[in-house]
Order: sequence, then structure tokens, then C-alpha cells
Amino acid sequence: MLHSRLLADVKGRLRIRSHLARQCLAEFLGVFVRMLLTQGAGAQAVTSGETKGNFFTMFLAGSLAVTIAIYVGGNVSGAHLNPAFSLAMCLLGRLPWARLPIYCLVQLLSAFCASGATYAVYYDALQNHTGGNLTVTGPKETASLFATYPAPYLSLNNGFLDQVLGTGVLIVGILAILGTRNKGVPAGLEPVAVGLAPGANCGFPLNPARDLGPRLFTYVAGRGPEVFSAGNGWWWVPVVAPLVGATLGTATYQLLVALHHPEEKSEPAQDLEFAQHTAGLETPASALLPQREL
Amino acid sequence: MLHSRLLADVKGRLRIRSHLARQCLAEFLGVFVRMLLTQGAGAQAVTSGETKGNFFTMFLAGSLAVTIAIYVGGNVSGAHLNPAFSLAMCLLGRLPWARLPIYCLVQLLSAFCASGATYAVYYDALQNHTGGNLTVTGPKETASLFATYPAPYLSLNNGFLDQVLGTGVLIVGILAILGTRNKGVPAGLEPVAVGLAPGANCGFPLNPARDLGPRLFTYVAGRGPEVFSAGNGWWWVPVVAPLVGATLGTATYQLLVALHHPEEKSEPAQDLEFAQHTAGLETPASALLPQREL
Amino acid sequence: MLHSRLLADVKGRLRIRSHLARQCLAEFLGVFVRMLLTQGAGAQAVTSGETKGNFFTMFLAGSLAVTIAIYVGGNVSGAHLNPAFSLAMCLLGRLPWARLPIYCLVQLLSAFCASGATYAVYYDALQNHTGGNLTVTGPKETASLFATYPAPYLSLNNGFLDQVLGTGVLIVGILAILGTRNKGVPAGLEPVAVGLAPGANCGFPLNPARDLGPRLFTYVAGRGPEVFSAGNGWWWVPVVAPLVGATLGTATYQLLVALHHPEEKSEPAQDLEFAQHTAGLETPASALLPQREL
Amino acid sequence: MLHSRLLADVKGRLRIRSHLARQCLAEFLGVFVRMLLTQGAGAQAVTSGETKGNFFTMFLAGSLAVTIAIYVGGNVSGAHLNPAFSLAMCLLGRLPWARLPIYCLVQLLSAFCASGATYAVYYDALQNHTGGNLTVTGPKETASLFATYPAPYLSLNNGFLDQVLGTGVLIVGILAILGTRNKGVPAGLEPVAVGLAPGANCGFPLNPARDLGPRLFTYVAGRGPEVFSAGNGWWWVPVVAPLVGATLGTATYQLLVALHHPEEKSEPAQDLEFAQHTAGLETPASALLPQREL
Repeated sequence: MLHSRLLADVKGRLRIRSHLARQCLAEFLGVFVRMLLTQGAGAQAVTSGETKGNFFTMFLAGSLAVTIAIYVGGNVSGAHLNPAFSLAMCLLGRLPWARLPIYCLVQLLSAFCASGATYAVYYDALQNHTGGNLTVTGPKETASLFATYPAPYLSLNNGFLDQVLGTGVLIVGILAILGTRNKGVPAGLEPVAVGLAPGANCGFPLNPARDLGPRLFTYVAGRGPEVFSAGNGWWWVPVVAPLVGATLGTATYQLLVALHHPEEKSEPAQDLEFAQHTAGLETPASALLPQREL
Repeated sequence: MLHSRLLADVKGRLRIRSHLARQCLAEFLGVFVRMLLTQGAGAQAVTSGETKGNFFTMFLAGSLAVTIAIYVGGNVSGAHLNPAFSLAMCLLGRLPWARLPIYCLVQLLSAFCASGATYAVYYDALQNHTGGNLTVTGPKETASLFATYPAPYLSLNNGFLDQVLGTGVLIVGILAILGTRNKGVPAGLEPVAVGLAPGANCGFPLNPARDLGPRLFTYVAGRGPEVFSAGNGWWWVPVVAPLVGATLGTATYQLLVALHHPEEKSEPAQDLEFAQHTAGLETPASALLPQREL
Repeated sequence: MLHSRLLADVKGRLRIRSHLARQCLAEFLGVFVRMLLTQGAGAQAVTSGETKGNFFTMFLAGSLAVTIAIYVGGNVSGAHLNPAFSLAMCLLGRLPWARLPIYCLVQLLSAFCASGATYAVYYDALQNHTGGNLTVTGPKETASLFATYPAPYLSLNNGFLDQVLGTGVLIVGILAILGTRNKGVPAGLEPVAVGLAPGANCGFPLNPARDLGPRLFTYVAGRGPEVFSAGNGWWWVPVVAPLVGATLGTATYQLLVALHHPEEKSEPAQDLEFAQHTAGLETPASALLPQREL
Repeated sequence: MLHSRLLADVKGRLRIRSHLARQCLAEFLGVFVRMLLTQGAGAQAVTSGETKGNFFTMFLAGSLAVTIAIYVGGNVSGAHLNPAFSLAMCLLGRLPWARLPIYCLVQLLSAFCASGATYAVYYDALQNHTGGNLTVTGPKETASLFATYPAPYLSLNNGFLDQVLGTGVLIVGILAILGTRNKGVPAGLEPVAVGLAPGANCGFPLNPARDLGPRLFTYVAGRGPEVFSAGNGWWWVPVVAPLVGATLGTATYQLLVALHHPEEKSEPAQDLEFAQHTAGLETPASALLPQREL
């Protein structure tokens, strides 16, 4: 019992009471875990010459990473993991607009730090694979372990369309999975269901933080400005297009499905507080809804 | 709060109150998401020369696509996604026969549009892969990304049998998963369970809309009448055989399993309305049951 | 409504009231669906020269097939699918011994019929692959699509041990998943959990019916007595060893885990009928328990 | 009924009433099943020359093995399966420190025995593959089927960091999945969720017992002291580093997420006994919590 009391005491002192600070910490850890697992799977595949991984394990690890990250961030921050999803939550009135830049910054920072951790864990493997010469292009390039670079034939226009449509479908899928008016996933299994959603578009960023954060890391860590100039200045596409896609996806799902849910189907428990919460949207996925404390 | 009130106001004006119109919109979006993800996985595999996808990621993406599409269409339209399944629902008295042609048309139209979206997103990749020459046969053909074409050795008879039996097993599987008298899946996880079912027969259409819609798109988009004449006039097999298979599958499951569920096991809550609903079948999967409003 | 009344009328006439007959029908359909999907995945992989499937899709299809088959047989027959599992149920007092031979026969018969269906569906593909010459050995052999044959180096002793241990672990896994005293799977998801269990040992029969039924089919359908003499008379190993393994697995799980569950943890609802049911085992997995009507 | 009474009688005599003994038996069986399935998948892949398995089936089998093992050990021992996880439970006050060495010893012993069983089942296959010459290095080595050996380029420092970070993320993921304050997984599905977690880092031990137990077996079974000297004395890294990682992972999750859960969110049912249990941590995952009886 001494042990327990000691723990409780320490706990009391360390507890942070600011809700915003707690959200930032949880979002940071969620993104960190997600990026570390995702990038680790890529690094393992590439540095082993595809003998211990390939695009499919990367695809699967990416899905699992999202699943675990949502469990980690869970109720505290909503585990958005993605500025595009945070934007969708703002559009739906589920996240105050004032928090959007804070969320985006935390996501970016965490992705940057996770890239550093991946680099450290795979340091020997990367040195062995590249002969110590980190490049952005060429057969031994490792920049694409961190950020995306377009295929040689891909125009910026087509890449932009790809990112817009991909993120749009992703957001439609997540909103559908979360929408309690529609079929509800048993509480606690949304992470698994949501983890499946992005997996279907493996190899695509669909997420500004996931792409820009690691790109900044590779800029700092020895590869220099080529990470921004490569691919005809591709870097801004996976930053801007997902935000456009999230907006279109949110609008599409609301216009085609969510708006038309009949009123008489709503749950009986509708006190004032609940009504306020749901003013912006009929189907609050309470599990993903950060509490407001403006 | 201003934001919320504004949203609520816009929402009120956009809301569609016709149940049938809402069903059509939801079914359209569900099929669209499903086809886009399924075809996208195929296009990615083929245009990357199988370095970023193969038949297995296509199989997996197909399963996930069905899962997500069912979440999207969900409670509104029932997310049939497949004329063969809509037919089964009619046979069981769960969908009014008058809605069958409407559902089929919406599914066909959505599959057509999704093929256009896939074509746009992979435009550069397809141009690069084919050298700009879109063909129905040959090593660089891309018509099979959209519709199915039989293996050279497959006779129409054998292909027909394959489609009948495949769709039959699919329908038996879905009815078993949905049947609440049998083991019920926790509400909200049917999409995942159903998503698994069709996956087992990857590479087979088993769905008239999924095959004919994209075939029509390739007919319009530059490939011409060869898409209908190829494979000894194969095109009608995946349109007709799944409907035969759905009929046989429904009959088999009812005759061997569902019909014999004893009465005394029925749920206590059996008011009149419930009895009406269940007159045609003892095991209404309410989650997939579109409400009638004849 | 006419449609519904007509259906209800037909239904009334077709309903079978014998519980045993209903169990046999459900078990037959469950095994049939399972075998068709499992063998179909194998046939697709082999006849496409592994371009449309490989050992991994076969492994996955096998797991999904078990999952779907359990949904199909579900509450009616318990969806044993395997004489070894039926034996375990008898040992635990959950299935009357008198039903064991009936279950085994139905499972065998269904596996035989499913092999015929697979043969029909893949007739053209098999003819094309083998050049019309169906053999039991050699590079173009297709007998192993139906029944198992040992690797050249495998002795009967080692193969026997393999089957005993494999089936033992399988039974331990299933009993653990089903045991409500232990962690209960949410009702309706046992099929998914159980479907995972056998998958881990892909390529192994672990099931007398699954091996002997298709072997008998290949004996009848043109391959003759070599299917029994091959592999040094291997055929009896996957028939006998799984039964030994099921006995050992059941005993192990009971002795190491199930027996020692403390009494005071039992559910409050323990009326007489429940006590009777559970006399033979504390943890009746009601979902898999066929009702006795001796 | 005679059968049932007989079973009940035998059962009464065999029942073990010591809680600790029951925990040891359950933990032993859980680890045994897990190791047998994991090693079996590896042995199958290697001895078939990767024609019947590869790193991906090994990855998948490893995940399934953990899932099944947690069902097996379940409520009785908590199914820790891993000394690093047992350490985390001690740190959180959920396992008495006095039980830690006992748990570790049982896990080690079970991993040792499971290695023997794998060796027996794959005896013919291993003899055929190696020509009867069991080695620790070289192209036909089979020592890595049992314990891990580092890649040639990996320094001890980098390997240590890898194991620390990997286990840390694993523990963060498991604590997040189990934490009921955060999103709760429906009771009975934690095994599946937890089974996913370690899978993302396939090819890594992250578990002292899983690595040292099989290494000891290969030491005894003919390979001698080279199993300890190989890789520059690598063997202690997967023993020590996971324990460091578990400590860091537990601290991280508590500091960044769990500590800050607000009090007012706690469940209403908080009697004295519950309060005692939760003194060390607010979120007892009762399913994984072995009952104390000091």
C-alpha cells in the first residue's frame, strides 16, 4: 500500500489541469506513435532490401499505427492526427477554430520529432544501406521514407486532384464510421474501423503534418533544400490539397447523407447541454469530441 | 455560437425530406466510394508495374471498400451496393419491388461516375503506362481495371456457373451474417463482417452494376464496342449470372437454415408493426432494412 | 402484403420441425460454404500459375471461409465443421455421443459434395492447367487442391505428431475463445475470433472430414487408388491424428485452465435448467451449444 | 447424466485452489501456445524455402498467436506473456512485486518447452533443410528460428536503442488499449486489439522470455555456446533493453496521458474495494488484472 500511496502522491503533483495542455500532450504522443510505426515499417522494408518488409507490410503497419494512435490520443485530444481532419472538425463545429492552429502545430512538431526517432533507430541500417550518403533522388535515396515525392510522370495538377479526392474519400469514410445516426461502431472499436479507412490509399500522404513535418526533418538532417525543390516543387501539394479535400469531403457527406437524417430518430436524452453540442451537427461522435472550454 | 446557428440554418434549407431521394443519394455515395477505392487499388497496382500493389492489395482494398461503403450508405439506403443483393432483399420482402429498378439504376450510374473519377485521378499514370494507347487486349491493356474479361480458356458456360455459384455463396454468407436469429453481429460491425464476405472471391465481379457501369464508361471513353464483343461476348455473363445466383442463394439459405428457426425463440418485443415487417422473413436485419414508405 | 402472405404460407409448409434434421442441414451448408471457398482459393492460385493467388490468399481465404461458415451454421448446428471439434464437444458433455457419428457423416458428405462443386466451377481452368491429365503427383498435379499429401521428407511419425499438436493447439484456442468464464467475446463475433484460430496453421488439414471427403471425391473423379497409396499411405494420418489431438487439447485446456475457475465467479442467473446444462462444464458457450432433445 | 456426474466428480478432485498455482498454469499454457504458433510459422517458411510462408505470414501468425494466447491465459493470469509487460504491471501497482520473478520464470520455462515442441514437430523438415547440420550462422542456419541475432551492420548501441524504443511504443499501445478511462475496447476484444500492437514490429523480440528461453533451448539442443557469443555477445540486449523500454513506456503514457484524466469522469460505482484496487492507477483493466491474494 505504501507503493500505491507514493504513486498517488507523485501523480497529484504531476497532474496538469489545463485541458488544452492535456490535449496537446495526447495529440503529440498519438502522432508520435503513429509516425514512428509507419516510418519504421518503411525503413525496415527499404534497408533490408525488401527481405523483411515491402509495400504491403508498410500498408498494414500504417493502418495499425493509426489504430493504436487513436487509442493513445483517444478521449483526450480526439486523436485527430491530421490537420485535414482537424479542419473537418472545425467545419462541423466540433472543434473551436481557435484550436485549429494549435492542433496543426502540435501535429507538425510531433511528426518532426518522430522522424528524428526513426532516423536514430535505423541509423546503422541507413548508413549500411546508403553507404553514408543520404540523397533525395537515385536508387539508394531514403528521403521518401520520410516525405512523399511524386512519380516522374505525375503532373502537379494530377497529383493535386489525387490528394483532393483521396482525402475527400478518407473524410467521408471517417465521418460515416463516426456518425452515430448512421450505424454506430461499438464504443472502443472506432479506432480499428478508422484505422482501416486510410489504409486503402497506402503510399499517399493525405495529411499535411505527416508530409511536411518529416520533410522539414530531412531538410535539417543533411539533405538540404532539394527536399523542397524536388518533383517540380511538389512539397506544397500534400500540404494544401488535403485541406481542400477535407472541405469537399465534409460538404459531400453532409449534403448527401448526414443532413437528411430525420429528426424523429434522435435519441431521447436531449437536454440543453447536449443540444448545444449538437447544434453544429446532429451526430456527435462523442468519443472523438474534445470538450470545449473556451 | 453564431457559426453553429448559421450551419443549422443552411442545414434546414438543404434538407431533403423524400425518403426515396435520400436513399438514392446515400446509395450513390456508397457505391461511388466503393468503386473508387477498388478501382484505385487496381490502377495503382497495374500502373506501378506491381511495385506498389498486386492482386492481394486489390483483394484487401476491395474488402475495405465494401466495409466503408456500408458505413456510408448505412441506415439510409441499406447500402446494397449490388443489384443482386437488392434482388435478394426483394425476394425476402425487405425491399419493395418497385424500388428495385431505381436502386439498380443508381448503382449503375454511380459505378459509371466512379470509373470516370478513377480515370481522372490515374490519368497521368495510365498515359505513362500505356503510352497513351488505351486497349482492351494485349499486355498493356487497361480495360480490365474497370470491367472483367474472362481468361482465354474459360467457356461462357463455365463462367456462368462460376458467377452463379460465387454470388450464391456471397448471398448465403451475407444473409447468415445479417440474420439476427442466427448469431447476431454487434450492431455497427456488420459492415466489417460483410466486407469480409465478398473478399474471398477476389477477381470476380458477382455484381452487375460493378461490371456493367465501368464497362459502359470504357465504351464511352475511347475503347469502343470491343468492350462488349471481347471474350466471345462475355459482358452479359456478369450481369445475368449474379441475379440467378442471388435467387438460388436466397432460396438455399431460407430452405436449409432460416425457415426452420423455431418460433419460440423470437424476441418478446413483437407488436403489430414488428409483425408486419417480419411477415416476409423472421430475421429482419434492421440495420440493413430501408424503411418502407409506399 | 400479398407477397408476404404467400411467402409465409410456403414457409409454413416447408418448415422442418425435427431438430436433428435442421442441425444436419445447417451443418451441411456450413461445411459446404467453407470447403467451396477454401478449395476455390487454392484452385484459383494453382490454375492461374500463382498470378491470382498464392499460399497467403489461400491462408486468408481459409480463415474467412471458417468465419462465414460459422455464421451460416451458427445457432442451429453449432457449426462444428470438424469431426475433431465435435469429438471435443462430446468429451465436454456439450454434444450427445449419439450425434457424433451423424455429425461426422454430414461433414464428410458435405466436404465430398463441395469438392464436386469446386471441380465443376474450375473445370475449364483445371483442364487448361493440366492439359486434361489429372494426376496425383508431378509438377502439374492437382490432387493436393482437394486433400493433403506430405512433403517428400516427412515421415508418418513426424506427420502424426504434427497433426496431433496442431489440432491440440487449435482446440485449446477455440475453447479459450468460447469459454465465457474466461474473457467472453461479444456475442456474434466468435465466428471472427474462431476463424482466426485455424488460420495460423495454414496448409494443415487438422480436420478428418476436410481431408477424407475431398480425397474420396478425387478417388471417384478419375484419380483412382493412388490418392490412398501416395505418401506411404498417408491418408489415415489426417483422419486419426486430429481426433487424438482434439482429445489431448481438450484435456490440456481443462486441466490447466478451465477446471480451476473459482465457483464464486459464476453468474447470478443460475436456475436449475442452467445448472443442468453446465453440469459437464462450467463454461457453456451457449452460442455453439446445440440444444439437446434426447 | 451419468457422464456429466462423472466429469463433475473428476473435476472436483483435480481442481487447484491456490490462486498463484492457477496463474502459473494459465501463463504457461498461454506462452506455450503463443511460442508454438510463432515459431511454427517461422519454421514452415524457412524449411519450405519460403514457398509456404514468408516474413509476412510470420508477422501475421505472430499477431494471431498473441491474440489466442491472451484468450488462453485470459482472466486467470492476465496473460502477460512478456516479462517486460509484467514489469509494467508492477510499476503501475497492478501486480505485486513478489510475483514478478515467478511470472518471469514461468514465461521463460514455457518458451523453452515450446521451442522443444517446435523442434520436434519440424524435426524432419529441419533435418531435410539443414542436411542434419544445425548451425548458428551461414545460409542454412536455423538458430534464428528460435532466438534473434542482429544484422551484421547493427551495433549493440543501436540495437539497444531499437529494443528500448520498440518496447516503449508497445507498452504505450497496450496501456492505451487497456485503459478504460480512455476509449474502452468491448470486453473480450482486448485480445484482438492487443494482438495487433506487437505485430507492427515484426522481427523484433521486445520480450526477454521470448528471446532467452528459445536461446537456452538451442544452447542445450546441439548448438552450444555460439548462441551467446554470436553478434558480438548480442544475447543480453533483448533481455535488458525491453525492461528499460517498458519502464520508459509506462512512464511516458502515465505522464502524457493517463495522469491527467479528470477525476469527475470516473465511474459512479466506486466502493471501497474498487478504490483500493485503483489506488495505483485510475484505469484498472479488470480483464488483465490478476486478483491479489497476498
